[in-house]
Amino acid sequence: MRTVKAILFDAYGTLFDVQSVTAKLEGFYPGNGANISETWREKQIEYSFLRQLMGNYISFFEVTKDALCYAVEKHGETLRDHQEKSLLQTYLHLSPYPEVKGVLSQLTEQKLAIFSNGSHNMLNPLIENNRMEKSFSKIISVDEIKQYKPTVASYAYATNQLGLKKEEILFVSSNGWDISGAKNYGFNTAWINRKNLPVEKLNLPPDTIYPDLRGIIKWT
Amino acid sequence: MRTVKAILFDAYGTLFDVQSVTAKLEGFYPGNGANISETWREKQIEYSFLRQLMGNYISFFEVTKDALCYAVEKHGETLRDHQEKSLLQTYLHLSPYPEVKGVLSQLTEQKLAIFSNGSHNMLNPLIENNRMEKSFSKIISVDEIKQYKPTVASYAYATNQLGLKKEEILFVSSNGWDISGAKNYGFNTAWINRKNLPVEKLNLPPDTIYPDLRGIIKWT
Repeated sequence: MRTVKAILFDAYGTLFDVQSVTAKLEGFYPGNGANISETWREKQIEYSFLRQLMGNYISFFEVTKDALCYAVEKHGETLRDHQEKSLLQTYLHLSPYPEVKGVLSQLTEQKLAIFSNGSHNMLNPLIENNRMEKSFSKIISVDEIKQYKPTVASYAYATNQLGLKKEEILFVSSNGWDISGAKNYGFNTAWINRKNLPVEKLNLPPDTIYPDLRGIIKWT
Repeated sequence: MRTVKAILFDAYGTLFDVQSVTAKLEGFYPGNGANISETWREKQIEYSFLRQLMGNYISFFEVTKDALCYAVEKHGETLRDHQEKSLLQTYLHLSPYPEVKGVLSQLTEQKLAIFSNGSHNMLNPLIENNRMEKSFSKIISVDEIKQYKPTVASYAYATNQLGLKKEEILFVSSNGWDISGAKNYGFNTAWINRKNLPVEKLNLPPDTIYPDLRGIIKWT
């Protein structure tokens, strides 16, 4: 049985369901909620990649706001101030996937931590609003070094923050690009393939693949 | 009237219509051609970004092959060797958009060049197959320095290859992320907004926006 000293979790899409913003979008933009939600998430990730590539970092909170503006405009709708505020607030109140709390409570042998592109002004309220402060010994944000995942520098920073070697860490994410980046860096990797997608064709296959977080219990 | 000494064109989606692969895909995978085509293009761009971010460059030809494998698998189809070969061949036989040759023939005052993420084994046959060798004084590929757009290093390389200052160059692309990168670097920029999309929310708006390439004639 393989053992690691720490399990490092991605947040959005891995522990927390970002599609739960769709209901609020649908309330504001009837018939367009799902489309706007999908574009919002796509652009959120794309903008973090592009800003890293161009060397002009801004926080994920700002990136999330910019992506929302784009998504609403693309689908022919108008974003009023109170709607923007309300929609960004939903990111602080996302729900964990149904199995998450149960799985975390069974992982008693390892240090558990979050490592996210999200900034602390998004992550900390999200953890508090879900009363999950005691589940994690550390919340690590790329905002502390302003290097987005999947750069090597970002994963190396998280490793240093845990005070461990990369071989002692299991990295868990539902995002294919994030798992590829973590594997490229040298973490042990578990891909939570919630959407039953193909493995990314980047020559960096995950060490293990599970349909939801329960697989992690077997791994450790 | 503004003047520049050179006009630098992106290739895929700007001069050449990448959606023309859809017909061939539809022939192999009836009812699934448009879906696979869309995913193929998305993944092609995403993989170039990811490889740049992770620091493990491979050529755009290889990236295009990987993206095709992903796209076919995602939509539940099988990619046979002869299909892969045939589909990759279509990239060497893309058609220019209808107005392209006419516009290029009217741009007699400036040096014209291509600057693409594509590798020379894709770009050179494409130009030859369309009998457009005489339209361009230079075909510049990021493969020469293995730095994908939209990094600053890539645009700086193209500038050096032209032997000009960046202020003396007009960069033309239909890809919002490419125009943002070019503007971030310091080029004059013209966005060919063929799909009538919103401006990317990256605080780097294009200097001018045209629905197709004919706008460039007015610019110069």
